[in-house]
Amino acid sequence: MPVNLRIPGPTPCPDEVLEAGAQPMINHRGPEFRDMIFRVTKRLQELFVTKNDLFVLTASGTGAMEAAIVNTLSPGDKVLAVSIGEFGERFIQIAKVYGVNVQVVTAPPGKAIDPQDIRKALRADPEIKAVIVTHNETSTGVTNDIAGISRVVKGEFDKLLLVDAISSIGSIPCSVDAWDLDVVTSGSQKGWMAPPGLAFISMSKRAWQAQAQSKIPRFYFDLAAAKRYLERGQTPWTPAVSVLYSLDASLEMLANEGLENVFNRHAQVAQACRNGIKKLGLKLFADEAVASNTVTAVHTPPGVDGAKLLALLESEYSVVLAGGQGSLSGKLFRVGHLGYCSLADIQGVMDALALALPRVGFTPAGVGGRSR
Amino acid sequence: MPVNLRIPGPTPCPDEVLEAGAQPMINHRGPEFRDMIFRVTKRLQELFVTKNDLFVLTASGTGAMEAAIVNTLSPGDKVLAVSIGEFGERFIQIAKVYGVNVQVVTAPPGKAIDPQDIRKALRADPEIKAVIVTHNETSTGVTNDIAGISRVVKGEFDKLLLVDAISSIGSIPCSVDAWDLDVVTSGSQKGWMAPPGLAFISMSKRAWQAQAQSKIPRFYFDLAAAKRYLERGQTPWTPAVSVLYSLDASLEMLANEGLENVFNRHAQVAQACRNGIKKLGLKLFADEAVASNTVTAVHTPPGVDGAKLLALLESEYSVVLAGGQGSLSGKLFRVGHLGYCSLADIQGVMDALALALPRVGFTPAGVGGRSR
Repeated sequence: MPVNLRIPGPTPCPDEVLEAGAQPMINHRGPEFRDMIFRVTKRLQELFVTKNDLFVLTASGTGAMEAAIVNTLSPGDKVLAVSIGEFGERFIQIAKVYGVNVQVVTAPPGKAIDPQDIRKALRADPEIKAVIVTHNETSTGVTNDIAGISRVVKGEFDKLLLVDAISSIGSIPCSVDAWDLDVVTSGSQKGWMAPPGLAFISMSKRAWQAQAQSKIPRFYFDLAAAKRYLERGQTPWTPAVSVLYSLDASLEMLANEGLENVFNRHAQVAQACRNGIKKLGLKLFADEAVASNTVTAVHTPPGVDGAKLLALLESEYSVVLAGGQGSLSGKLFRVGHLGYCSLADIQGVMDALALALPRVGFTPAGVGGRSR
Repeated sequence: MPVNLRIPGPTPCPDEVLEAGAQPMINHRGPEFRDMIFRVTKRLQELFVTKNDLFVLTASGTGAMEAAIVNTLSPGDKVLAVSIGEFGERFIQIAKVYGVNVQVVTAPPGKAIDPQDIRKALRADPEIKAVIVTHNETSTGVTNDIAGISRVVKGEFDKLLLVDAISSIGSIPCSVDAWDLDVVTSGSQKGWMAPPGLAFISMSKRAWQAQAQSKIPRFYFDLAAAKRYLERGQTPWTPAVSVLYSLDASLEMLANEGLENVFNRHAQVAQACRNGIKKLGLKLFADEAVASNTVTAVHTPPGVDGAKLLALLESEYSVVLAGGQGSLSGKLFRVGHLGYCSLADIQGVMDALALALPRVGFTPAGVGGRSR
């Protein structure tokens, strides 16, 4: 049985993308590489809907989050962090490690941030220089309203806005220029349908101004070096060439599908997932009004051992789901539906859950638990 | 004509290695990944000839160099840097960026460091805490005598010893434990016959003691996090899974070949390369007594445009060589012969040079320029 890998990254890659990754190595300082990095960068800019500089880093998404912090802030800077889960906490942790003075606004688990809370915090402390925020909180399956947040952060207060869009951009609407987002990050193993190993980061003019003044030391993640090298079609350090081959292929597929169609597909499979989960008698973790179209978090049913459920799904039904992270470990499980995902993939998850749940002590609703 | 990629990384990958990289994605927090990361780590430890902790980072080799610095030093620490070329300079640059107080010893271009110079420098300043050194200087094709350097640095002075072994270890002898090397770095695209995207770093007990006291901020490259996660068969951040697949396959090939055989093969192809270059009437850049067995640097012949020569070799003979870096740009070219390289590959380079050189204004020695 082919494995139905439904975690929020690494996501499954189309065969063409995997095959593209197996091409022979080339000189990363030569003309073929130059053509590829220019093409990939341009396509990523189109999918970020931005004319800002954009860089491909050899790192996981966390590396791009670190790049966002170390390139724009200085020790002692006051920053407002919007955290609604594990990845919000990670952004805070990175900022604190580098000496940034972090104030935090949060929302209850499963809820998005209310932009009004950001407004209050920014009013209360005019010294706050920047806002760091997670667009799509992968740990709870909640999408923050970045457009609304930007209207406050940029429109009312004109602060620097750094966005972790790792599990959102390219899959759900995130218009970097229209929303005036200064720094935006993502990673190849998310909606981009490519293997992990590359991270992306876009930098606005305002972000470059901050970069020129930033005093956090940086070397590997120095975006000024990335900019210098990209001008001649290179990266400062040897890049993950085979992952770039794959990304080059997957970006072409996304471009052919068209961004609106990609968004619609994600909205459809996400809705099918939420419907299916509810039909099984399971409870969604996230408030449906802000539920993510890339990952769905589900309460582990009372009395069920979450780890046992996931192990059973994998070993007997070839369905791989993700557990809860940090304090949510065991309390929820997560279905990834970003990138290469169809309605049939989601139906497969529901079918497997319908069969597996009774074996771990939960009787799903409906006959056979079919989700539609 | 198949391309003969003879740059010092990315190096060509065997077909099996490229194909392995095209396997479907898996959960990086699941049992298959755990088995793979344990297997890869164990094999790397065998090839590093060490029982020290060893970590696989998603980054290029420069990322591992940064990890070496930020995990063991503190701002203001006095460090002796041994620099004999571009990569020695890079190590210095990283240390300086993070506030380390760097003293430098050098050797003339094409020469290795004399351990006596290190002895003098360490005697002159007892406050020096650590020595950072490049094992194999890829920019000039010179191999430093790390065993001899360690006898001074560790044997006589008992300092921390950080080694950039990116283009040496796994290809030429570098015995981490026997030579008492505290931190040793490498990268997947060098002798390991895998695509770029992963870096390796080993940490001795002494290095961990330094880590506990180090005050340089770090997050993405924090090796304490890497250690915590590796204990359960994971990496802290999503790793470059497809590159790991490839590395898993290439390490098996290296293990089957046997480390001594790998070293002998590198010594043979390197000697063939140096002989071939001399037979063509070209001049080796490095002192032959310390010439590298992984990369050979060659003086651009007088009157020849180095860039034109490399472009001609690539476009008409499908041989890809590297130019000089930094201040050596145009003054030399380099033949990589690390990793997946045979005598036939080297002969192919010599044949192409024999045909190309007359077309850029240099008449090679010997009839037709055959190198043997």
